[in-house]
Amino acid sequence: MTDPPSDGYSLLFDVFVLGQRVRHLMAIGLADAPLRSEEYAVYSVVFEEEAVTPTAMAATLSMPLTTVADYVRLMESRGHVRRIANPRDRRSYLLVLTASGRKAHRDTNRAFERVHAAFSSAIPGGERAVRRELAKLLSAAEHASLELADART
Amino acid sequence: MTDPPSDGYSLLFDVFVLGQRVRHLMAIGLADAPLRSEEYAVYSVVFEEEAVTPTAMAATLSMPLTTVADYVRLMESRGHVRRIANPRDRRSYLLVLTASGRKAHRDTNRAFERVHAAFSSAIPGGERAVRRELAKLLSAAEHASLELADART
Repeated sequence: MTDPPSDGYSLLFDVFVLGQRVRHLMAIGLADAPLRSEEYAVYSVVFEEEAVTPTAMAATLSMPLTTVADYVRLMESRGHVRRIANPRDRRSYLLVLTASGRKAHRDTNRAFERVHAAFSSAIPGGERAVRRELAKLLSAAEHASLELADART
Repeated sequence: MTDPPSDGYSLLFDVFVLGQRVRHLMAIGLADAPLRSEEYAVYSVVFEEEAVTPTAMAATLSMPLTTVADYVRLMESRGHVRRIANPRDRRSYLLVLTASGRKAHRDTNRAFERVHAAFSSAIPGGERAVRRELAKLLSAAEHASLELADART
């Protein structure tokens, strides 16, 4: 079984272009929403987890902790998150969305649902097969990063 | 057939996280290479096409023309591309890599090939199935963008 380079471009190039296209799609779909695309991803993690540490957010988003910290500062400046004591670790804290944070997320979610419906319905055969293959790519990217990082040390 | 929300996150969230992970993987893999990840994608299009208009680059990369123009200026400032007359359209020009541009691409390609090998070999079952599903996502993102853009006008 050989890899199918239908053109001269690699699998990683395809992933890059997919990122570009989805960013464009989200920009159109969220044009009138209160949150931008990447903000919506960050808010969604706090929303889904209900109360979450910045470290756990960084893991779920595969985002550097410093970038998460920038978002947390932005969300705090908007009054969209607040800190509560972490019952499992007194040295750390948990973030929760405030009422206005939940409203920004909910108002953006309405636009996001339209984006998702348009995207999902344009996938031949539906989401199931693509999510299975995406899961392989997600895990392969993580493994390859560890392998290359090990090789450098 | 229902969609499989193994957690509360959407397919578009998975695509976002894949972009984050691949960006991280490329940053590790190209740490000592002359070009950064996104630069390598742009140089690769000029390399593969041999002579290409900025408009065609924008289409292949799914990148705004203004962003391509920024990259072209950067590449020109480094002496990595030059303009030649477009034999098919006297009002436009084609970009080609210079000798030093080809060297920067080639030196980065050595690191990229290691990234690609680590990534590809970490995909259970190999690249074929994932590239087929990626092609569906690429086309779905394009269709959904057109649909949402039409709905706004």
